[in-house]
Amino acid sequence: MNEPSSLAPVGVVGLGLMGSSIVAALLVAGHPVRAIAPIATEAPHAPERIGGQLRQCRDADLIGSTQLYLDALTVSEDYAALAGCELVIECVIEKQEIKSAVYQKITGAVSAECIIGSNTSAIPISELQKFVQIPARFLGIHWAEPAFMTRFLEITCGEQTDPVFAERVFQMAHGWGKEPTLLKKDIRGFITNRLMYAVYREIFHQIERGHATREDVDKAFRYDAGSWMTLMGIFRRMDYEGLKDYESILGRIFPQLSNRTDVPEIMQQMVREGARGVHNDRGLYSYEAGEGHQWDEAFARFNQEIHGLAAEYSAEKVKAYLQ
Amino acid sequence: MNEPSSLAPVGVVGLGLMGSSIVAALLVAGHPVRAIAPIATEAPHAPERIGGQLRQCRDADLIGSTQLYLDALTVSEDYAALAGCELVIECVIEKQEIKSAVYQKITGAVSAECIIGSNTSAIPISELQKFVQIPARFLGIHWAEPAFMTRFLEITCGEQTDPVFAERVFQMAHGWGKEPTLLKKDIRGFITNRLMYAVYREIFHQIERGHATREDVDKAFRYDAGSWMTLMGIFRRMDYEGLKDYESILGRIFPQLSNRTDVPEIMQQMVREGARGVHNDRGLYSYEAGEGHQWDEAFARFNQEIHGLAAEYSAEKVKAYLQ
Repeated sequence: MNEPSSLAPVGVVGLGLMGSSIVAALLVAGHPVRAIAPIATEAPHAPERIGGQLRQCRDADLIGSTQLYLDALTVSEDYAALAGCELVIECVIEKQEIKSAVYQKITGAVSAECIIGSNTSAIPISELQKFVQIPARFLGIHWAEPAFMTRFLEITCGEQTDPVFAERVFQMAHGWGKEPTLLKKDIRGFITNRLMYAVYREIFHQIERGHATREDVDKAFRYDAGSWMTLMGIFRRMDYEGLKDYESILGRIFPQLSNRTDVPEIMQQMVREGARGVHNDRGLYSYEAGEGHQWDEAFARFNQEIHGLAAEYSAEKVKAYLQ
Repeated sequence: MNEPSSLAPVGVVGLGLMGSSIVAALLVAGHPVRAIAPIATEAPHAPERIGGQLRQCRDADLIGSTQLYLDALTVSEDYAALAGCELVIECVIEKQEIKSAVYQKITGAVSAECIIGSNTSAIPISELQKFVQIPARFLGIHWAEPAFMTRFLEITCGEQTDPVFAERVFQMAHGWGKEPTLLKKDIRGFITNRLMYAVYREIFHQIERGHATREDVDKAFRYDAGSWMTLMGIFRRMDYEGLKDYESILGRIFPQLSNRTDVPEIMQQMVREGARGVHNDRGLYSYEAGEGHQWDEAFARFNQEIHGLAAEYSAEKVKAYLQ
């Protein structure tokens, strides 16, 4: 990555789990970061948490040492600290009225040149855009957890976003070590989420009919889809398999897929019963007490490995073996 | 894996790419394999190809040396070689009339105790079942390429399959180093294929409307879905993320997903134009001459790595860190 503080300062508003992780990603990329904690209790813990994340980055050889990067961070409750930022990323909770108030405060602190991005995954960018003074400079910048260790970044235009600014953030994101995607319309759920919901619609349909178990579905995805996903994605996979079979099977299977619109009963039941998955050891699987933490640890380590693997197998590198 | 020839002999009919790869998987698992080449020209090349695959297994530390395993292979054009096999796997081309003829010949050679499995991914097991003498002992055994290096195996019951035999193959498959899934009804496309077709239905809808590019979709899948797929699968991922958000988003997004039944124009066009993806360097992406071979190489190597990674991160191992 870049030297610490070698780039222009970026603002981050919101220092929850995701916000901290985004701060770490931007520090590693070489930006000084001006972090705003709208929730006063978040501020004191943030540097320690972000320090821990930077040590993970160091252990993964993304940076040489942590302190110089951590020195490029300021944490404040005062939005005035955002003055001079050309980009501010909002990652507060998914409530329109709270986000709206946050945008007022950001706008009060920055110049008219500043681009404001939201990390929302739940609210349409075109909606949030109504709350800012210059909608053309507002867009979605959606990260994947942990932001400092994933290559994914989804940039989404709202109806009023000027594509020039989306393009600018798209370019910047390459400098952050990301493989950004640019979505020109803010369809609900953006790309991966929306596509995965297509999977969920079909799989709940099959599970409810007793055609397969949850365990079997997870195995199929881990070992079958998982065996090519990180190498190829969707369309490269089709090219790899050859296209003719797909064409005939698309026509046969599309009419048989579920078109349901209701919420599957098992999910309603889980929520009724207060199941929060690994977070309270009750979910679609059963968990021993404390097992949730193990999954956090495992995901952090796995992510580091798959991150490295994805880089080794970029399309450019596959092609380069030709020479 | 097991010592060479330490298990009962298994028959394999069909020695194309997939058949050879299945033979290698069974040899590595410790079965003597009696391979039948219904296409005479396949027989002479099979041992060499399978030898190469066994060397890949040796390089991945799945076996110690190749020769003893290769010695457990017989290749013949004469179905009589199948006598004594308790399991025969058919992997000839996806034509009902050819498969039907093959089943007649298998039945003529084996005892009434023999289980016959088909590697088909295109024809319903309930259909193929009509061509065999003992439909209760017929089922789908669907492998993923390369069979000797993937953990995925989909066992599918047809309408007349006795679940006892599906269960028996399911148990055997664990001994082959697989993470098998058992599908109690032969829904079209089985599990992963069918679920991926739900993705394709939605993504062609978005692509045709210009909301995202193919490249961006592939990036989103490689770097976002790919970052957790091999670790978690579908339902574990929901538990990991917490269930409440899913429940509310399912209800919002399901009604917005595409219910199309037509074959996307881009796929029709590709097939009309004779595009066969990496196989003739013309497809959804553009390819330099010979690049297809690079993708073969890359997939072979990637598979080896993701295979190892999946094993390191089994649910049991994640849980074991608790102790």
